[in-house]
Amino acid sequence: MAQSLSCRVGRVVLTGRWVSCVASRSLCTAGQQEPLTLKEQHDGIRRIILNNPKKRNALSLAMLASLRENIVTGVDSDDLRVIIISARGPVFSSGHDLKELTSTQGREYHTKVFGACSEVMTLIQDIPVPVIAMVNGVATAAGCQLVASCDIAVATEKSTFATPGINVGLFCSTPGVALGRAVPRKVAMEMLFTGQPISAHDALRHGLLSRVVADEASLEEAVVAMAGRVCQASRPVVAMGKAAFQRQMAQGRDAAYATASRVMVDNLALRDGQEGIRAFLEKRKPAWTNSTEKAHE
Amino acid sequence: MAQSLSCRVGRVVLTGRWVSCVASRSLCTAGQQEPLTLKEQHDGIRRIILNNPKKRNALSLAMLASLRENIVTGVDSDDLRVIIISARGPVFSSGHDLKELTSTQGREYHTKVFGACSEVMTLIQDIPVPVIAMVNGVATAAGCQLVASCDIAVATEKSTFATPGINVGLFCSTPGVALGRAVPRKVAMEMLFTGQPISAHDALRHGLLSRVVADEASLEEAVVAMAGRVCQASRPVVAMGKAAFQRQMAQGRDAAYATASRVMVDNLALRDGQEGIRAFLEKRKPAWTNSTEKAHE
Amino acid sequence: MAQSLSCRVGRVVLTGRWVSCVASRSLCTAGQQEPLTLKEQHDGIRRIILNNPKKRNALSLAMLASLRENIVTGVDSDDLRVIIISARGPVFSSGHDLKELTSTQGREYHTKVFGACSEVMTLIQDIPVPVIAMVNGVATAAGCQLVASCDIAVATEKSTFATPGINVGLFCSTPGVALGRAVPRKVAMEMLFTGQPISAHDALRHGLLSRVVADEASLEEAVVAMAGRVCQASRPVVAMGKAAFQRQMAQGRDAAYATASRVMVDNLALRDGQEGIRAFLEKRKPAWTNSTEKAHE
Repeated sequence: MAQSLSCRVGRVVLTGRWVSCVASRSLCTAGQQEPLTLKEQHDGIRRIILNNPKKRNALSLAMLASLRENIVTGVDSDDLRVIIISARGPVFSSGHDLKELTSTQGREYHTKVFGACSEVMTLIQDIPVPVIAMVNGVATAAGCQLVASCDIAVATEKSTFATPGINVGLFCSTPGVALGRAVPRKVAMEMLFTGQPISAHDALRHGLLSRVVADEASLEEAVVAMAGRVCQASRPVVAMGKAAFQRQMAQGRDAAYATASRVMVDNLALRDGQEGIRAFLEKRKPAWTNSTEKAHE
Repeated sequence: MAQSLSCRVGRVVLTGRWVSCVASRSLCTAGQQEPLTLKEQHDGIRRIILNNPKKRNALSLAMLASLRENIVTGVDSDDLRVIIISARGPVFSSGHDLKELTSTQGREYHTKVFGACSEVMTLIQDIPVPVIAMVNGVATAAGCQLVASCDIAVATEKSTFATPGINVGLFCSTPGVALGRAVPRKVAMEMLFTGQPISAHDALRHGLLSRVVADEASLEEAVVAMAGRVCQASRPVVAMGKAAFQRQMAQGRDAAYATASRVMVDNLALRDGQEGIRAFLEKRKPAWTNSTEKAHE
Repeated sequence: MAQSLSCRVGRVVLTGRWVSCVASRSLCTAGQQEPLTLKEQHDGIRRIILNNPKKRNALSLAMLASLRENIVTGVDSDDLRVIIISARGPVFSSGHDLKELTSTQGREYHTKVFGACSEVMTLIQDIPVPVIAMVNGVATAAGCQLVASCDIAVATEKSTFATPGINVGLFCSTPGVALGRAVPRKVAMEMLFTGQPISAHDALRHGLLSRVVADEASLEEAVVAMAGRVCQASRPVVAMGKAAFQRQMAQGRDAAYATASRVMVDNLALRDGQEGIRAFLEKRKPAWTNSTEKAHE
């Protein structure tokens, strides 16, 4: 199966290790059409690949459902440590499928589309493993929102980011939720009001990206290295930390410190919390149990 | 009148199109003194020009009243799509008129001054059209606050930004409201505690500006292009988007998504929402009605 | 005593003026061990120097207590205008002392450690004088939190910043409170999830620092100049401004303007508020009283 995958995913660099690709069944009709997303997992790293380049990886309801399924399936399993979301083709994602937003579809359908989209975006932040956006191309509208919603985002220099809804009479209000929390207000508003794209370097400067790399090969290398580091950590420690970060960032400073201090103490009570400290003091590599149980004190 | 204006506004580049200048009547005594602000509007773009360079465009009560009037007049008219605020002379604005802040004026008067100032600053964010600060020079104290309060801000390289109130025994606390929401806390605090100016490039790096250009000619070009793009959009779509952005940014993430999702659905129900989607799918230019009415579904 | 200090503080550049060093008595057993922190004050500038380079200036409970004492002692005295926190040795601070976080110490002790740490971090923001972090080296975990918690932070180019707790099974959740409020979310999360350090230039780009300088000599010069500017201001004006900034930043925009406008009026009612305005209008240097009393109106 590895071969057919490496054929299918085209320009995405796949090493021999990526053999366990499982295309999203619900949306893949064998022999008839390509699955909307590809999912593969190896050594704790799950890759989700937007796989509809002909439609510029539009976030149709079906694509969102596929993406959602790829994210939540086995998300609590110890085997999963980090998720990488990338895309086939020159467009990371162009956002909503405008065919789903015509008056023919109607208000109820529209409500369903934005509900599904918001759910995926917040899900990414609420699951217990980090999610990395790996961008090599154009990310617009809800596609830009997807990048802004990931915990970490790395992109190639050629990548660009825009919220151009204004041009088609649909202001990017939901992308603005994620964008406005990622970049300074003035940058977000210029993007929203003018629809003009910003470069990867500007996206980095303003906080939409955490890193920019030269080309696709460097992108693969950087993201795999980053994901690898997450995999070397204890899963429950990462999970506890991610949840605590999201929670405390929504609080005032003093409440945030109360939350985070409690979490530090709980973290230390974990088996891996104690193992980590001991290993450090004994100058050896820690041996994680990845158990969510407390250590005997 | 165009000629006398192009004379008066001096270094501000005015094309032949800017003929409908109306100086703020309330503050212009014909033949005696220059108006404190100039207002001109053409093709949807309103320019407001701070016009008291001899007083470094100080935001006196009269100047604030003039500015307020220039902003609110006809703000709900379809003819208005975007506002550009610029200034005559080498100082964009030096902030409050310190003569209005002496003990002679008294506490009640001081309260009135800061009330008027806060009102203009928040008005800029609450009106239904985007406001662009077009800066070519020094912006200090409440002048810096004015830049920070605009939706978008573009400046020439030579422009500088400071909150130097500390030097005259008046900490820039109200400018700090806008500044602290535009740049990282540490940058704001260094500016507030030391009073030292930052360069346009640093202002861009930290989010106080959305763009920096080389010189005055590039400034004119960049801002007009930006304003032009806003004019090409549907007015009610822009208005809905601006209001939604302000609202959701004051909310927590989940409430923000609920707000923004509702707005997306409402946006789609607008005539221009439907026209935009249709035009895109039919690969033609949209013909906006700019109507705030809902489309027949 | 100046000589022995200039001996002890090693690479920290001390001019002849820094003679009033008082090592933190509670933690200094004469003749036996070095004090954990050094405190010296001259001309309004208090320097606190982390002085345990052998232990990488770990923020042990004793170090935190010493730091706390150095910060609060005489903090309301007119003699104190600004605090600079620096460190001896190549490591600014490596964060908590992991020996204090083993299971042997137990949950109650851990709670005490994080309580003490949060108290120092928030104290820095709540005292009436600005605190400048002066960094020349590595700042990790709670050491990075200390930098993020200061009002202003200046560092040499070679300095690096990291939250590597993940590597020892203890996610940097409390450092994340300060870090997440200083830099964009995506930058904070990459640092927290990967444990990888960022350079001083990246720290500046993302708002963790307010300035980067080439080397130690430039660091001394830049920080002393900055501190000197704070000293030239009126103490109660700075105190009022710092408190107002913290307060309004925790509020929504409109409440923030109400707070800040009230503070502006109160600031003007101070003797130094009026003296500053008068001196400016009379084109002379202000003569501060530093009195917290209101001027007679």
